[in-house]
Amino acid sequence: MGVLLRFGMLMIAAFACQARPDRRVDVPELTDSQYGSLWPLPQQVKISPVTFSLSSSTFQIVHSAKSSAGPGCFLLQNAFRRYFDYTFGYSKKQWKGKVENTPEVSELQVWITSSDPECEEYPSVTSDESYQLSVGENTAVLTAAKVWGALRGLETFSQLVYDDEYGAKTINKTEIQDIPRFAHRGILLDTARHFLPLRVILENLEAMAINKFNVLHWHIVDDSSFPYESSAFPELSNKGSYQQYTHVYTPTDVKIVIEFARMRGIRVVSEFDSPGHTQSWGKGQPGLLTPCYSGSVPSGTFGPVNPILNSTYEFMAQLFKEVGQVFPDAYIHLGGDEVDFTCWKSNPDIQKFMQQQGFGEDYTKLESYYIQRILDIVSSTNKGYMIWQEVFDNGVKLKPDTVIQVWKGNEQKYQSELASVTAAGFRALLSSPWYLNRISYGQDWQQFYKTDPYNFNGTDAQKKLVVGGEACMWGEFVDATNLMPRLWPRASAVAERLWSSMDVKDIKDAYSRLTEHRCRMVQRGIPAEPLFIGYCKNEYRGL
Amino acid sequence: MGVLLRFGMLMIAAFACQARPDRRVDVPELTDSQYGSLWPLPQQVKISPVTFSLSSSTFQIVHSAKSSAGPGCFLLQNAFRRYFDYTFGYSKKQWKGKVENTPEVSELQVWITSSDPECEEYPSVTSDESYQLSVGENTAVLTAAKVWGALRGLETFSQLVYDDEYGAKTINKTEIQDIPRFAHRGILLDTARHFLPLRVILENLEAMAINKFNVLHWHIVDDSSFPYESSAFPELSNKGSYQQYTHVYTPTDVKIVIEFARMRGIRVVSEFDSPGHTQSWGKGQPGLLTPCYSGSVPSGTFGPVNPILNSTYEFMAQLFKEVGQVFPDAYIHLGGDEVDFTCWKSNPDIQKFMQQQGFGEDYTKLESYYIQRILDIVSSTNKGYMIWQEVFDNGVKLKPDTVIQVWKGNEQKYQSELASVTAAGFRALLSSPWYLNRISYGQDWQQFYKTDPYNFNGTDAQKKLVVGGEACMWGEFVDATNLMPRLWPRASAVAERLWSSMDVKDIKDAYSRLTEHRCRMVQRGIPAEPLFIGYCKNEYRGL
Repeated sequence: MGVLLRFGMLMIAAFACQARPDRRVDVPELTDSQYGSLWPLPQQVKISPVTFSLSSSTFQIVHSAKSSAGPGCFLLQNAFRRYFDYTFGYSKKQWKGKVENTPEVSELQVWITSSDPECEEYPSVTSDESYQLSVGENTAVLTAAKVWGALRGLETFSQLVYDDEYGAKTINKTEIQDIPRFAHRGILLDTARHFLPLRVILENLEAMAINKFNVLHWHIVDDSSFPYESSAFPELSNKGSYQQYTHVYTPTDVKIVIEFARMRGIRVVSEFDSPGHTQSWGKGQPGLLTPCYSGSVPSGTFGPVNPILNSTYEFMAQLFKEVGQVFPDAYIHLGGDEVDFTCWKSNPDIQKFMQQQGFGEDYTKLESYYIQRILDIVSSTNKGYMIWQEVFDNGVKLKPDTVIQVWKGNEQKYQSELASVTAAGFRALLSSPWYLNRISYGQDWQQFYKTDPYNFNGTDAQKKLVVGGEACMWGEFVDATNLMPRLWPRASAVAERLWSSMDVKDIKDAYSRLTEHRCRMVQRGIPAEPLFIGYCKNEYRGL
Repeated sequence: MGVLLRFGMLMIAAFACQARPDRRVDVPELTDSQYGSLWPLPQQVKISPVTFSLSSSTFQIVHSAKSSAGPGCFLLQNAFRRYFDYTFGYSKKQWKGKVENTPEVSELQVWITSSDPECEEYPSVTSDESYQLSVGENTAVLTAAKVWGALRGLETFSQLVYDDEYGAKTINKTEIQDIPRFAHRGILLDTARHFLPLRVILENLEAMAINKFNVLHWHIVDDSSFPYESSAFPELSNKGSYQQYTHVYTPTDVKIVIEFARMRGIRVVSEFDSPGHTQSWGKGQPGLLTPCYSGSVPSGTFGPVNPILNSTYEFMAQLFKEVGQVFPDAYIHLGGDEVDFTCWKSNPDIQKFMQQQGFGEDYTKLESYYIQRILDIVSSTNKGYMIWQEVFDNGVKLKPDTVIQVWKGNEQKYQSELASVTAAGFRALLSSPWYLNRISYGQDWQQFYKTDPYNFNGTDAQKKLVVGGEACMWGEFVDATNLMPRLWPRASAVAERLWSSMDVKDIKDAYSRLTEHRCRMVQRGIPAEPLFIGYCKNEYRGL
């Protein structure tokens, strides 16, 4: 299987690395993978030792004559340009003539087989991302029912092209059939604890597409700031953002993110977390938060959203109506995590309400009461919802299509949560093992990689309710200065776990491919940090 | 004390931060410091509530009429330009007229008092970095014996200027007397495990100057690669670098680093570590390394430098003669750490030599024999040397001015090492607590900050032998993609420990100043990562 090393990673792990205290780091040996630099590994790959050349001056990516999509499909046109650049961007112009007897691949035909290619659609959890790729002499054919599969296949094609020892663009005869294992493969970005400038969000979407992620979970607001500029309630960001001109996302910014993501087959699921995590909301919406009491007088501080006022629900109805229109995705994330009851308990009006409702001293009932009403509001806008696991744990009544995000606890705990959620017939999304904001020294990607979302006690039917997972990058210690190298290539480990077959778990093979995949990201301008000692042929040129 | 917050950090730590598992992070409350954003804190600071304006269109940094330096001192001319830009770079042009009754500072006079300002010199461990700064109406005066103190004072001056609420450049009436506590305040960069492009090294020198570091410890070669291009032995980098054109430091590159550093009062101490950590040397210098044996036959692998051949010492003499000329600093770091004896033990010629020398089975004696000869070679070139602590631990005879770098062990261990080294009358340099390549989640800067190099059992005379410390950034997991945010502002904690008075240890005050200092670095283009939730008025604009 003649797949050559493409990015010039030196195999240095073979000799003894004496690196002071660091030598105890557990690093696999770096060897060639029969799968080259493919990442995430497709479901079925056959790579032949037969190779073909590609000429940057004549190679074309074209719509197949049989395709239901054509030049009017801007999503594909845009992708053709992007992947041509990824494939040939750094190569010098080649000699135009064809060398006698050198077999060549001169075009990639993209064939959308379904009558509706979905060029103008937004991706969804049911989008068909499957594709087939056949690389043979003269022509490579990428077949997909929809544009979403074509996007994934274009990325795969670009990963198959490498430089031979003379620098000539080369590809092996290859057959690939591919389909993601999980439908929801997400990255959570937190733009509330630190504001992330638009260009950082866009760059991250580029990296996500390269890793076949398909959901940006945009944790857009939180206690610390409210950068979302609402048309209905502009005071929320005027008062609640860090700075109302420089640290907000205008409606145009949001549109750009959504369209940039759509072009890459990535959904944008916004999270407006309540009733906790809402301190910043209170600044622009007086009366929304619960006044905390110190004895019998208000202390001047505020707690979670006030769940006993009609005005609260009127505000939320209007806000979520807008959010539902601004974000086209079928789902909104409603949060619902980590509600601190201290303030509610201190407030005499809340106490009275608890009595009236017969909640006794059980404030989870009040929380559930609130969440229930919010869920009803959002349901009425024809949106589905995602929530953090507490909402399920507290027994709130949920729609059958609700996605419950599991984020708490160690391995044992999240496995039992996955079992409970799916036993109750709900869909689960796993995040607990993938809190990538938590850093430690050495190759922690291995532990992210080894985790499997099916590794819990449950029936096959239960396993099928696991829709996927999300790598989370909470923002306490992360902003534009360090987001990208902290997230990549560590999130790539999660990408392969969520895309590839369950039995793809050879750490040594993964290490080889990931090392090259990381250099490829660097070559494409993504500051993905190194996995270990070594080098990339083209080092990072940004700063 | 009317020192205002300058970089718009919101004080958000005051309300409850619910941050999922991350909320357990130990973060001090964020309040104003009476010292504004000064970092590292000068030895004596008096800031008055009286303020003056500065006009970017008229303000000047000039040589005092009494100064021994003038426009011919390019080091200062360059620094004037740099610090004018740091002070006014981001401000729009101001109205030229003077507002009635608004007191102003219109010039900073720089007065070098010594007859030799040392404009053309290289900084050394004995360089005088002290300065006085007096900011009064009309004129600020920066007084220093040498240019080195002037450089430090210019940085301090730039840290005193802030924007008032109308954005006008403002400075308080201030008196500062300053002198560093330790003469050696270094950062170790490792360009062997990953190659660091020149621009990254230069950017790091910028950050070092902003933090008043004065030594770049350039761990330039190691097992993994030999990027130093030697004039005498070009094959060392031709064969031993990752790539001989793209991953080497040419003589010109080295010159640029040294001059760029000199302009900022930073010494460049090169490390050529032997006899271990030399795998890459063997590629371009056949016969240098010890052939390892498998039973009675050579195994084809190589161990440390071969200490029993005359050719080894002839090579080293020539190499270190060159290195001594290329790097003007009075010291060369000779390494000497982590020598693995396995290969030496396997080699029959080495065994025979051990017998002849009467070393028995004690291979530390062979190591000492080697190091002794290397030290003699370097001494003969009139250079001093620094070495890792093992060389001292093994009882090698050292020159009295040798600097012994302490890197091993936990607090208890390095304290006892500091005691031993200084009791033997040698100078010690502390690094053990400052291995910044080791990362963990949360505010680890606090532990770097709390460490004090004097915290060991020893007499005052022993304490005086501690010349300073170095923050080390070993390169296993670090390259151009992540070096800067991983190093800054964590290394800033070490910077203040090594510069400021021993009694400057209020974590809350440090946190306030460091938070603003980090935003200042970001504003100056350094991607220094955030310390916690919040924002900078000017977020990082690179990518």
